[in-house]
Amino acid sequence: MIKGRVKGKVWSSRHIDTLPAGALLEIETDDGGHLIAFDPLGCDDNEAVLVTQGSVAATYFQGKTAPVDALIIGSIDEISK
Amino acid sequence: MIKGRVKGKVWSSRHIDTLPAGALLEIETDDGGHLIAFDPLGCDDNEAVLVTQGSVAATYFQGKTAPVDALIIGSIDEISK
Amino acid sequence: MIKGRVKGKVWSSRHIDTLPAGALLEIETDDGGHLIAFDPLGCDDNEAVLVTQGSVAATYFQGKTAPVDALIIGSIDEISK
Amino acid sequence: MIKGRVKGKVWSSRHIDTLPAGALLEIETDDGGHLIAFDPLGCDDNEAVLVTQGSVAATYFQGKTAPVDALIIGSIDEISK
Amino acid sequence: MIKGRVKGKVWSSRHIDTLPAGALLEIETDDGGHLIAFDPLGCDDNEAVLVTQGSVAATYFQGKTAPVDALIIGSIDEISK
Repeated sequence: MIKGRVKGKVWSSRHIDTLPAGALLEIETDDGGHLIAFDPLGCDDNEAVLVTQGSVAATYFQGKTAPVDALIIGSIDEISK
Repeated sequence: MIKGRVKGKVWSSRHIDTLPAGALLEIETDDGGHLIAFDPLGCDDNEAVLVTQGSVAATYFQGKTAPVDALIIGSIDEISK
Repeated sequence: MIKGRVKGKVWSSRHIDTLPAGALLEIETDDGGHLIAFDPLGCDDNEAVLVTQGSVAATYFQGKTAPVDALIIGSIDEISK
Repeated sequence: MIKGRVKGKVWSSRHIDTLPAGALLEIETDDGGHLIAFDPLGCDDNEAVLVTQGSVAATYFQGKTAPVDALIIGSIDEISK
Repeated sequence: MIKGRVKGKVWSSRHIDTLPAGALLEIETDDGGHLIAFDPLGCDDNEAVLVTQGSVAATYFQGKTAPVDALIIGSIDEISK
């Protein structure tokens, strides 16, 4: 998995039918890369998250063949300073 | 998924039989990388798109074993200025 | 597989239900990259480990569809100096 | 998929039994990377090709479990100048 | 697939049960990257090899769910000078 931080949302009004309804968040990884992940948790902007990639991301959508290759699987606990 | 922009089309007259009929678009990612994605949506040149990669891209072609590892799953909404 | 070294732990109190219980360790690879891997072995901080990635990592969790794309599969033997 | 150009052939007399018989070509990608792809089309040296990667490449070999993670799926049409 | 050269061996006395018995070799790729691959061929140090990656690597271990994401599938023929 990779660690990253939520940096905004992406909207796609015109999409293929099999894309599940839900938030698509822009993630900035610790190494400065960017990707878009499906968010089942309702994460906030700037929240630190754990993202899984590849075909295991799609297994979250059981009984469907969702074209999702990146999924937020957890919010990372951060110690408030 | 990754965000990118359509930068032209690729034609392949000589291809393997299992390649589905349809447009193959050249995508430039936000990080400057390039890849070719299958386009089921009829996207225009320069359009911002969302691309899924790996084996989940092939699941779009149900009942077939399509050799497609990158699929445009949505057009990204852009605010006109 | 890749070689890396354990560099701390990640906690995620708020996560999706299918994330298996267990330690999530931060791994620094030999090339300086970073990733988070599930640890079934109880590895220590700074321990050298072997990590497998992608859908084969999830096959460790038999009978479940775990959203895990990186798994520590072994501790690397190091000669004490 | 990625675009690349054929840059020679690789021979492997000693290989595992499940490697299908056929040409293994060295591909230089547009970004300067290198990979070896299985060629079912009989491509020539310097020919521009479309390569699919990952587990979908292996689905070409139906009824077998071929250890092939990169497959030439098409020759790219080039306009003669 | 990728081309690389064997650069030593890795031992892991403490590993998960599903890791198949066999040699784990350190591979240096042509581009200078490093990875660990399972070796079913008994390759020598410095030998040029062909490595497949991802879930197709695990299909070599038929009837098991091996956590192996990189497999040497062939030794590359080299012309002696």
